[in-house]
Amino acid sequence: MAKNIQLDEQGNLKHFLSIEGFKRQHLMNILDAAEPFANVHAQAVKKVPILRGKTIVNLFFEASTRTRTTFELAAKRLSADVLNININASATTKGESLLDMLHNLEAMHCDMFIVRHNQSGAAHFIAQHVSPNISVINAGDGCHSHPSQAMLDMFTIRKHKTHFADLIVVIVGDILHSRVARSQIHALNTLGVTEVRVVGPKTLIPYEIESLGVHVYHDMEKALIGSDVIIMLRLQKERMQGALLPSANEYYHQYGLTEQKLSYAKPDAIVMHPGPINRGVEIASSIADGPQSVILEQVSNGIAIRMAVMTQTLGRKTGVQL
Amino acid sequence: MAKNIQLDEQGNLKHFLSIEGFKRQHLMNILDAAEPFANVHAQAVKKVPILRGKTIVNLFFEASTRTRTTFELAAKRLSADVLNININASATTKGESLLDMLHNLEAMHCDMFIVRHNQSGAAHFIAQHVSPNISVINAGDGCHSHPSQAMLDMFTIRKHKTHFADLIVVIVGDILHSRVARSQIHALNTLGVTEVRVVGPKTLIPYEIESLGVHVYHDMEKALIGSDVIIMLRLQKERMQGALLPSANEYYHQYGLTEQKLSYAKPDAIVMHPGPINRGVEIASSIADGPQSVILEQVSNGIAIRMAVMTQTLGRKTGVQL
Amino acid sequence: MAKNIQLDEQGNLKHFLSIEGFKRQHLMNILDAAEPFANVHAQAVKKVPILRGKTIVNLFFEASTRTRTTFELAAKRLSADVLNININASATTKGESLLDMLHNLEAMHCDMFIVRHNQSGAAHFIAQHVSPNISVINAGDGCHSHPSQAMLDMFTIRKHKTHFADLIVVIVGDILHSRVARSQIHALNTLGVTEVRVVGPKTLIPYEIESLGVHVYHDMEKALIGSDVIIMLRLQKERMQGALLPSANEYYHQYGLTEQKLSYAKPDAIVMHPGPINRGVEIASSIADGPQSVILEQVSNGIAIRMAVMTQTLGRKTGVQL
Repeated sequence: MAKNIQLDEQGNLKHFLSIEGFKRQHLMNILDAAEPFANVHAQAVKKVPILRGKTIVNLFFEASTRTRTTFELAAKRLSADVLNININASATTKGESLLDMLHNLEAMHCDMFIVRHNQSGAAHFIAQHVSPNISVINAGDGCHSHPSQAMLDMFTIRKHKTHFADLIVVIVGDILHSRVARSQIHALNTLGVTEVRVVGPKTLIPYEIESLGVHVYHDMEKALIGSDVIIMLRLQKERMQGALLPSANEYYHQYGLTEQKLSYAKPDAIVMHPGPINRGVEIASSIADGPQSVILEQVSNGIAIRMAVMTQTLGRKTGVQL
Repeated sequence: MAKNIQLDEQGNLKHFLSIEGFKRQHLMNILDAAEPFANVHAQAVKKVPILRGKTIVNLFFEASTRTRTTFELAAKRLSADVLNININASATTKGESLLDMLHNLEAMHCDMFIVRHNQSGAAHFIAQHVSPNISVINAGDGCHSHPSQAMLDMFTIRKHKTHFADLIVVIVGDILHSRVARSQIHALNTLGVTEVRVVGPKTLIPYEIESLGVHVYHDMEKALIGSDVIIMLRLQKERMQGALLPSANEYYHQYGLTEQKLSYAKPDAIVMHPGPINRGVEIASSIADGPQSVILEQVSNGIAIRMAVMTQTLGRKTGVQL
Repeated sequence: MAKNIQLDEQGNLKHFLSIEGFKRQHLMNILDAAEPFANVHAQAVKKVPILRGKTIVNLFFEASTRTRTTFELAAKRLSADVLNININASATTKGESLLDMLHNLEAMHCDMFIVRHNQSGAAHFIAQHVSPNISVINAGDGCHSHPSQAMLDMFTIRKHKTHFADLIVVIVGDILHSRVARSQIHALNTLGVTEVRVVGPKTLIPYEIESLGVHVYHDMEKALIGSDVIIMLRLQKERMQGALLPSANEYYHQYGLTEQKLSYAKPDAIVMHPGPINRGVEIASSIADGPQSVILEQVSNGIAIRMAVMTQTLGRKTGVQL
């Protein structure tokens, strides 16, 4: 059995870096652990003391208020102390090496690094070099991985569809540059859905993506036929202006989710989007705000999933019963 | 009875957006609620658990460390979790619409938005569109309103003068651009002072301001005769350089509060200023630091008033006895 | 006896501004107070409630994520509320005077200012002007002083060497511009080490430094002979490019700590550096990461020392038994 850096020697979750390397049961454990947290907000006091005294560092090498906010909220609702460090503005300007900076934070007895970086593999690199008592969570690295986003999507799908086995899931848009899509494909296949389809313009579908276990479509209507779950990806502004796409209008015409295209999916299909949405580019407003959309549920579930991942990784040390 | 968006169906405080729309008793309730908080700092532990587990978001579309600080401190002393979001630097750069961003924060189970915006009406707009369990506090919108500042001023006046009924209050300076002045005028009249006077250069007094129930003066000495409370407004630097004013020196000569001008007020008149003060422009240092100045008391009372408003709006949900 | 602004009338620690003015017993008290905090991280919950309800303000007029982080962590582990204020971006742009800003923060019932400033004497100035219930900690002012850094160094030395009396300590590098070096020299002499040596290029050793009670060397090997503790200073990038130094390479050749040079010190000498280190400029990586290096212990001890200083200064008010 190949060693998975994400697990400790007892097979407990230690880091959360990418969906690859996890078995179905690991992912199901995380989903199960998130269930009670999905209801924390209904309590009079929306806070649990599980990680009191722990120090969680948001180590963001790439700005993302949205992602930082979800992790910060999750940490605070677990009663942890949170430190926000934006790297551009600080240590690297003093010429400190990344590893020296990490070792300094370790020496300050920090317990967890939430890492956001524009280079693929950054979170893995950091996990390989931290001391044994630190957990690393990947909050998005380049085009590679965004596993907590994928898991909140799985949580949302399970809430609505109960079983993964019978599902046809369609992922629409810029698969090439999406760290979310890669993580979703791995998670969906690990959890055993019937079929994962990806659809988008040829310029935005990676070569040999079929090897990940997906079917490739370029015609959106065909892709949607019989689907249970439709995951729209965000189209980055810079792609719209580049040579990869004709125009935002043309993109919407071909791959934007409209009432007409949605009619090809199953009547009870759910519509997902990682946000922030470009209305009228990836998706019609009537659908984003319509009865099949679960976009805001995804956001709520995102807090619960992050609380679960934080608790599972740090729970090893606290001995807390979850 | 016209519906007031700031009250819920039981007549409890839900949002705090502007003084308009509140009756005397509402304002008195807020002042009364602030009383115990004005003494919290004297306790060994300067903190109360009233809003533990609540998430309060400082949603600042316009930078203001000073105002952000007062709300952050108030929230922390109520044991709430605070999230600081500076909008310029984040979501809007990704092209997310304001409402989508709000709905996302709601989905994360935030409980309160403290909104600062350079456009009049922004906080109202947000309050109209948030879900029913969210409270919105206006922390200053354009030239329109700054109700928590007005209420801390009322609290300060009541501390020194006990009854509003007998008071002559003079507001001095740039009435035209001041969100504080508008809120103060509404609050003073609602609380039933004898007379509100405004005084300033013609270019800085809005047309038809009399309709708000004030007397307009352009001669400061005349305005101050017999006054009990003198509220100096801050003169924005950009006004000094514009066509609206001859010069800072000339302004000080005519409308700066000096010992000589102050002698026209009652001997026990108090002097107020929302800060930060421009010494030697709006006010002589000897008066700002003198025995009639209550400027620093205003700052202290600002924390208590914000604690009261937060508690009253969120208290609806917690069922906490105040 | 000259009045020491850093002590209150009972001789308790009130401010922590510079090592000068403290007697040996004061420094020993701080080191002793830090001992229990050095083990807090080993507890299940890494937090103590000593400063619950206190408000500690990081008042940084000069950006330093690293220093800010250590104080923020120390404060949070003492359960205080922390307010981060970066002055460039805020009040001064509105033309508010420094003293008005301080008095405002006092009026908000803040309890402690952690001051970082690029001008020597800034923290002293602030301490002289705050109200009696506020404590001020100097987190580095110009080339003058960085007393908490010096004390964490003393703590680290004591851990390894037990007694100060018998030690020869060598400080290497840019003595001229180092606030750390000045504070270290004062602390070492107050604690009664046998000898303090400073070594560096003539351009980076201040004139008449001998008056502080040090021996000056320009030859590093001679300086290291018989030494117990070697403190490497950080070389600021801007010095390397200026006229004060030939080149980084040449500096390393003469004053960088290599295996060869280290062999002149006692075999059990410890190697220290305030960080962040410039590998291959001040110090060889093999030494920075080697068995004699205590660089990361310094970082850990930095949290404990800051917790001790915060507790001692604010403890006066809480009456907490330490």
